[in-house]
Amino acid sequence: MRILLANPNTTEAVTETIAAAARAAAAPGTEIVAATARFGARVIGTRGEMAIAEHAALDMLARHAEGCDAVIIGASIDSGLRAAREMLAVPVLGLTEAALHVACLAGGRFGTITLSRRSAYPLREMIEGYGLMSRCGGMRAVDANPLDLLAAPERIAALIEAAAASLIERDMVDVIVLIGAVMAAMPARVQPAIPVPVVEGVSAAVALAGAMVRLALPRPRAGGYAALPARELVGVDPALASRFTGS
Amino acid sequence: MRILLANPNTTEAVTETIAAAARAAAAPGTEIVAATARFGARVIGTRGEMAIAEHAALDMLARHAEGCDAVIIGASIDSGLRAAREMLAVPVLGLTEAALHVACLAGGRFGTITLSRRSAYPLREMIEGYGLMSRCGGMRAVDANPLDLLAAPERIAALIEAAAASLIERDMVDVIVLIGAVMAAMPARVQPAIPVPVVEGVSAAVALAGAMVRLALPRPRAGGYAALPARELVGVDPALASRFTGS
Amino acid sequence: MRILLANPNTTEAVTETIAAAARAAAAPGTEIVAATARFGARVIGTRGEMAIAEHAALDMLARHAEGCDAVIIGASIDSGLRAAREMLAVPVLGLTEAALHVACLAGGRFGTITLSRRSAYPLREMIEGYGLMSRCGGMRAVDANPLDLLAAPERIAALIEAAAASLIERDMVDVIVLIGAVMAAMPARVQPAIPVPVVEGVSAAVALAGAMVRLALPRPRAGGYAALPARELVGVDPALASRFTGS
Amino acid sequence: MRILLANPNTTEAVTETIAAAARAAAAPGTEIVAATARFGARVIGTRGEMAIAEHAALDMLARHAEGCDAVIIGASIDSGLRAAREMLAVPVLGLTEAALHVACLAGGRFGTITLSRRSAYPLREMIEGYGLMSRCGGMRAVDANPLDLLAAPERIAALIEAAAASLIERDMVDVIVLIGAVMAAMPARVQPAIPVPVVEGVSAAVALAGAMVRLALPRPRAGGYAALPARELVGVDPALASRFTGS
Amino acid sequence: MRILLANPNTTEAVTETIAAAARAAAAPGTEIVAATARFGARVIGTRGEMAIAEHAALDMLARHAEGCDAVIIGASIDSGLRAAREMLAVPVLGLTEAALHVACLAGGRFGTITLSRRSAYPLREMIEGYGLMSRCGGMRAVDANPLDLLAAPERIAALIEAAAASLIERDMVDVIVLIGAVMAAMPARVQPAIPVPVVEGVSAAVALAGAMVRLALPRPRAGGYAALPARELVGVDPALASRFTGS
Amino acid sequence: MRILLANPNTTEAVTETIAAAARAAAAPGTEIVAATARFGARVIGTRGEMAIAEHAALDMLARHAEGCDAVIIGASIDSGLRAAREMLAVPVLGLTEAALHVACLAGGRFGTITLSRRSAYPLREMIEGYGLMSRCGGMRAVDANPLDLLAAPERIAALIEAAAASLIERDMVDVIVLIGAVMAAMPARVQPAIPVPVVEGVSAAVALAGAMVRLALPRPRAGGYAALPARELVGVDPALASRFTGS
Repeated sequence: MRILLANPNTTEAVTETIAAAARAAAAPGTEIVAATARFGARVIGTRGEMAIAEHAALDMLARHAEGCDAVIIGASIDSGLRAAREMLAVPVLGLTEAALHVACLAGGRFGTITLSRRSAYPLREMIEGYGLMSRCGGMRAVDANPLDLLAAPERIAALIEAAAASLIERDMVDVIVLIGAVMAAMPARVQPAIPVPVVEGVSAAVALAGAMVRLALPRPRAGGYAALPARELVGVDPALASRFTGS
Repeated sequence: MRILLANPNTTEAVTETIAAAARAAAAPGTEIVAATARFGARVIGTRGEMAIAEHAALDMLARHAEGCDAVIIGASIDSGLRAAREMLAVPVLGLTEAALHVACLAGGRFGTITLSRRSAYPLREMIEGYGLMSRCGGMRAVDANPLDLLAAPERIAALIEAAAASLIERDMVDVIVLIGAVMAAMPARVQPAIPVPVVEGVSAAVALAGAMVRLALPRPRAGGYAALPARELVGVDPALASRFTGS
Repeated sequence: MRILLANPNTTEAVTETIAAAARAAAAPGTEIVAATARFGARVIGTRGEMAIAEHAALDMLARHAEGCDAVIIGASIDSGLRAAREMLAVPVLGLTEAALHVACLAGGRFGTITLSRRSAYPLREMIEGYGLMSRCGGMRAVDANPLDLLAAPERIAALIEAAAASLIERDMVDVIVLIGAVMAAMPARVQPAIPVPVVEGVSAAVALAGAMVRLALPRPRAGGYAALPARELVGVDPALASRFTGS
Repeated sequence: MRILLANPNTTEAVTETIAAAARAAAAPGTEIVAATARFGARVIGTRGEMAIAEHAALDMLARHAEGCDAVIIGASIDSGLRAAREMLAVPVLGLTEAALHVACLAGGRFGTITLSRRSAYPLREMIEGYGLMSRCGGMRAVDANPLDLLAAPERIAALIEAAAASLIERDMVDVIVLIGAVMAAMPARVQPAIPVPVVEGVSAAVALAGAMVRLALPRPRAGGYAALPARELVGVDPALASRFTGS
Repeated sequence: MRILLANPNTTEAVTETIAAAARAAAAPGTEIVAATARFGARVIGTRGEMAIAEHAALDMLARHAEGCDAVIIGASIDSGLRAAREMLAVPVLGLTEAALHVACLAGGRFGTITLSRRSAYPLREMIEGYGLMSRCGGMRAVDANPLDLLAAPERIAALIEAAAASLIERDMVDVIVLIGAVMAAMPARVQPAIPVPVVEGVSAAVALAGAMVRLALPRPRAGGYAALPARELVGVDPALASRFTGS
Repeated sequence: MRILLANPNTTEAVTETIAAAARAAAAPGTEIVAATARFGARVIGTRGEMAIAEHAALDMLARHAEGCDAVIIGASIDSGLRAAREMLAVPVLGLTEAALHVACLAGGRFGTITLSRRSAYPLREMIEGYGLMSRCGGMRAVDANPLDLLAAPERIAALIEAAAASLIERDMVDVIVLIGAVMAAMPARVQPAIPVPVVEGVSAAVALAGAMVRLALPRPRAGGYAALPARELVGVDPALASRFTGS
């Protein structure tokens, strides 16, 4: 199986880190192909950058999805997820959506932990948009950034463990979900100190991509995700424009 | 007062039509400045085109919002609305969001009518995202497209009147909301035959833009819409990139 | 434009204060006409007084709405709002409903601050009744009364600033809504210290009244707000009874 | 046990009918005392009349609740219910609230049937206000009025049976709730033809009043229903004003 | 009236305690018949024990419900409640469901207090399942077990009073609901110190059982609670199997 | 990988059919071990039978889960799912829960189709319990039973296709979920005629079991699914009782 790991950030080093995590999580025989967005934020953090990443994600998929069995959008904001599902014939997974569904399957209510406070605002909107708010017991941020995480992982790990303890004690959650591609290596570090399952998006998306590929659901010809007849787009990459020819 | 009417579709003729409707709705002394997206769909209709329009809307605002007192996103999908609110210091209104809030202020529950069935899928997600689903009594589509509307407005008007009658009778709504910029001239035509108020987005957004400008709320320095420190973006229009310098 | 500011409290001094705030908020050329309830509480505070004010608000509107282009119910409890919308042909706004919708249009989730703890109970019911609970991030009370506010506004301002800081920090709201007609002058005082937009009801209602008058929506002839055929009422003011003659 | 049946309509004949139904439903030894509102609609039907009835209900209770062990508000709109709970030390029941809770205790989801279409609009708001919307499977109206019911009960019964059949078949409800005081005698007539339990408000309120009296819950001294210190009201009946003296 | 108090725990001493509480709460002339589960947990505490108790409750009712006018499931987890409603022709009440509905009828929002933290997890699922989550203002546990309660009731009472004070102050609830059959004697002890009504399940269920018996709703012949045609069960007690013969 | 397919019905022929479907869906190298409940309904259909199956499922798992890497509860009612998650250290999947999450990952809103009308009542409660009601666009039943399905699959297929068409057209769903273990072979038959993805539980559960095994989440030591200290159970199978020894 071949999975495209498409990073809507424009930093290749981030792509490589996520791809490595995806490879570590993948079953033998699963190939991870990585791509990096051609335009947009180095590290998506604002609503404006998220808006640009919606486009950048599709631009990237139009160029790289060919020949892949599944696609994973490699950022916690699940950039372009719905549009990609409409555009492609193969399963598309988002890191956060995948992690939340895995958390539900593990049972009970989940609590989320983000690195930055700021990313908790759109995260709440995403959870609401996925219809999973009643499964969410609480949200925490450790008020750090990806550089902090790289520089002092053990300090961030301690903050995450404290946030998890608070979610378990005060908000009575049953599962901890770490939000963000940069969190991929964190469960291995913090799980021993956290008495409930810790889920993160990269491994969750890889695992669910395998499940969805196995199920081989057909592309819709009706409903809100069906392809529409040929459409004219201007000013976008030809590879992307060619995806709207209605076939 | 000067309002930017920013059309995230790439068809100038559509821009002109919406701008004309906005001018007809505006109070004396209000100037409507119009802009058209530089890239994306001729007429946004798919999720993929919506994703691209998120970027195109910001790109357009970065070039044209200077010197305006308010901005209206001129498409029913409210492309880039949240990002624009984060990026700009002036009020930003979306056609659909504005129409839904006006409908709420008119009282009771509303029913929506879209031209195409397809646009009803993301519309539902928008209503949920705005937290207004409990005010929505029903949704209808008349299964037409903008060209039908131009070619045979009286036929579309009849379909809208029938859909409204069904919403009032079966779903017991108190207000009808016509969704879509192309609907701007329709209330004048159908209101006599529809026994509850008919709201559409262009006039609603113009009216609410006036109200929001009058209230002069300050730009947030905290929360999920505050500007972040300077950020590096690559591959986007310099005008847009300059909006992320953190000032 | 002529707006009736109808105070369902029976204290004229309160009416004058609110009317002054409304005049300060109104656009040039907007006339504010004020009226005070003929019966009921000096300052509405209990559920019993709210029940009486439902009647008193209508009684007042029946006497004073003639010749006005819009009506604002001048108390945070929005007394008689739905009934007034049914009874009158012109737009009717409530302070709290207006403030909540303005907060939504400013983006994100709002937090409310009331003077008294007691008024937070019915406020929650109002927010639920308006269908906006999912937009409400938190509620605070500063445990003061209107006399405190008049006697020591700077002390109350400090309490409000602290409550706002807590709402922004703990509940992650994007907008602060000050509840209560007596709060009208407070945003000017506290906004500099609060890093997100501060909304209050009098200015919100005046601004939205302007928008609704401009939209000129017709009176419903169907649905839950249409006038019913002539009805017999006994024991009420003749001006009020005459409003139920079905015309 | 002595129960005050307080009819917020101003028609004594209606009071007598409801009181007779309450007496028929009451356990031996339960005395039903009836009162009629002193002002307001002959038969409450509009939102304006509902607003007036909020006051009229309290006015009536202030005069008649003395010496009673419980109070039932005898109209489907549950006029003044929350205010009465705050004002009185004894249990207060509303017809519709009582019927909905009995329906929940009978199991599953309920469907409501109102005589008039118009009363279904505020009924939905009531169900939402009681937090029971997720238990409501559907709502129907038979488009009749109380006079129709008196003149041709068997015709109305047939309409109710048809509405119930539709609710059971299409909306899969488990219990039928007949809304309105005038429905009190209807279950005996329609139950044989309706294959699920049929609940109506008068008997439900009488039965639950017995339960609440037995439980003898104390009057709150805190929270949103506690009495407030002495308050000044003007222009209301002295009996009512005396209820706000804070004792 | 004869009420079966069916304890799905397998400890007879618990049954006797609950039955004594039920007898104390019952009206004169009401006979309480008690039964104890034949298999399962001594004191139900885990999800596994709850699953077994679903069966054990039905097994017990099949043997003991004959000749009773109503049934009360005597554990806070309301074991087998829905199945018992389907299986029996008489009203069936659960301790927690009954307490929650009584709390709603007392007005406003309720807060729950459980002895153990662990029982709060399924309690939340029960409240959601009953559709009453919007009426729930908060949940607390005192982190004790039934033995603690027996050994040192005054200490547990103090913990409950503190939890109630927190619910009233922080979560603004209007009613306290004590969860668990062992709480039956607690309201008499803590009510003086708690300024809002304190409800518990045994007395609530006994009172509502009286109301439901009085209403004499018929057994459904349609919907989700109707008996199905004869069904074959294997490996269960003959008394239970005979309940599925379709009559 | 070894998966226990535990059928809570007591009919071995059903077990064999489901196990065959599971084997057809499983990846190479996945072994499916099947078990049949020792007591309860031949085919679970009533709420009473569901209650018994809660126990029967656990009884079966206690005997057969040893040595398996994951467990699938092989009935649409997901009997004992939460209890099994608490009791076992390996992932536990339910047919309906799995199918609903797969449907969510395929995008948009789903519509469910059950064979019998009766099973739609508890299905709705399950969807609500999983917190997924906002993703559910509609529910249909084809009013058949498993024997009909075996005797005339093409007739049932036609009914399912009609129900799916109605869900897609009227309720605008994006995915069809077939509910029930007996539906396992149906997607292959109906998918060509249904223009949106068709999901069923057996293949969904097998695929997600693979994903969950790969993720290797640890057993919780806190929260609502952690094992409790040793507990005394009476009257149950020793294999089951031994699962409550707290280790």
